[in-house]
Amino acid sequence: MEIVSTNRSHGGTQGVYTHQSAETGTPMTFSVFVPDHAPGAKLPVLWYLSGLTCTHANVTEKGEFRAACAEHGVIFVAPDTSPRGDDVPDDEGYDFGKGAGFYVDATQQPWAANYRMRSYIETELSALVAQQFPADMARQGITGHSMGGHGALTIALRNPGRFRSVSAFSPIVSPLNCPWGAKALTGYIGPDRAAWREYDACALIEDGARLPDLLVDQGTADTFLEEQLKTPLLQDACSRAGQPATIRMQDGYDHSYYFISTFMAEHVVWHAGRLKA
Amino acid sequence: MEIVSTNRSHGGTQGVYTHQSAETGTPMTFSVFVPDHAPGAKLPVLWYLSGLTCTHANVTEKGEFRAACAEHGVIFVAPDTSPRGDDVPDDEGYDFGKGAGFYVDATQQPWAANYRMRSYIETELSALVAQQFPADMARQGITGHSMGGHGALTIALRNPGRFRSVSAFSPIVSPLNCPWGAKALTGYIGPDRAAWREYDACALIEDGARLPDLLVDQGTADTFLEEQLKTPLLQDACSRAGQPATIRMQDGYDHSYYFISTFMAEHVVWHAGRLKA
Repeated sequence: MEIVSTNRSHGGTQGVYTHQSAETGTPMTFSVFVPDHAPGAKLPVLWYLSGLTCTHANVTEKGEFRAACAEHGVIFVAPDTSPRGDDVPDDEGYDFGKGAGFYVDATQQPWAANYRMRSYIETELSALVAQQFPADMARQGITGHSMGGHGALTIALRNPGRFRSVSAFSPIVSPLNCPWGAKALTGYIGPDRAAWREYDACALIEDGARLPDLLVDQGTADTFLEEQLKTPLLQDACSRAGQPATIRMQDGYDHSYYFISTFMAEHVVWHAGRLKA
Repeated sequence: MEIVSTNRSHGGTQGVYTHQSAETGTPMTFSVFVPDHAPGAKLPVLWYLSGLTCTHANVTEKGEFRAACAEHGVIFVAPDTSPRGDDVPDDEGYDFGKGAGFYVDATQQPWAANYRMRSYIETELSALVAQQFPADMARQGITGHSMGGHGALTIALRNPGRFRSVSAFSPIVSPLNCPWGAKALTGYIGPDRAAWREYDACALIEDGARLPDLLVDQGTADTFLEEQLKTPLLQDACSRAGQPATIRMQDGYDHSYYFISTFMAEHVVWHAGRLKA
């Protein structure tokens, strides 16, 4: 792992790091904020998975998470959203290929070699964070935005007991039922929609996966709400399954970091309460 | 004035606007955050002047001011740092010309026609803000970063009574005594250093200008501190003149928005206390 940069911020250290990923076959960049802490202390970890077109940098610069993470003693990890580099296959659209890994392990060509963001997040980067930072991996939470909200929900639902706290900002709740999801999963996983269910939060809940509870914030002025995000499908799936969920529709907020940053501190507090309980 | 964008954020509206400036002879872009407020209410205004290479966008995206401004009911205005456009003269350096207006009214050619950021901020944009937003212009504060810290200090010192509160992040405290200042003021104002004194916070204080008080935060790991910013010159000028000043050296912080955002909320609170007293 190499240090790209470190900056003192909000009583902690905001770092950006690169490493050679065995999963994606490429160098990968990610950011980690570590609050000041007592020597030898291990801090809980909050993962943040970003949305389409983003890198680690968007939330790192605009997310407004550091004050709350420093106050509550939480490490904040922000990975990239796909493999990068000239040798990595790409697509003309913003919603497939680079910047759009969808947190899946691709099985289709030419994507299967590099587009392994599921295993990258679940296994490789987790091990690296555990090794390189003062992280208490028994106390992990996960959140994300849009495509990254989909990632946070599905990763948590597939790994019961691993995350003590789960939240999302304007998540894609059902790739089975929206154009972004259909394009991405057809491309990465193939046309068999049964194979998509492990990458669909609503389907995972229908199929029996459960979380302790769940916080979602969704802006009512989000132009992607009706066609792509479809929050009501998650509300319905949780209601039918008896999955506890706090799903808040936020009046007038859109899909941008102006929305995310508004509710970020509340999410950090929500996670901290469960991670430090 | 035209609306470029508005986004709901932190219980208020973050807008970006353009207008044709008579002072600069160009279109100018600026941002304004207006917290939700009672109908007909007028809110105090905090000006934020940005540093070299910046536009309104840097602080708008990375400044972390909205939560505190919403909580305390303060409007936040962020102008650009120079005239813009293909017809505006420029310099190869990042520290002169576009992005580097230094908040002066240039007297030298070819700069004098467009580089009138002093009058733009002090007169034209102030009038526009008063007209277009629910701003109580009897309650104004001003702050800024680096070149913009210089701007905030000098504008406040030249306009006694106009700003109830003044602060700065890592300001250039004496253009007379640093390479950035010498290059900019020679270029915009000419070689007569006596004419620079109205653009030098330390010289203005030496020459008798006073503020009610003053808050400065300066990072100790700021690579520009020794050669360009020279905080001790301001400490000395304030001490000699009996100018009340709270000048805080912040251990390990650098010149970036990771530093600014860390102390932004404290500055907003500091201003709000004086603006709402």
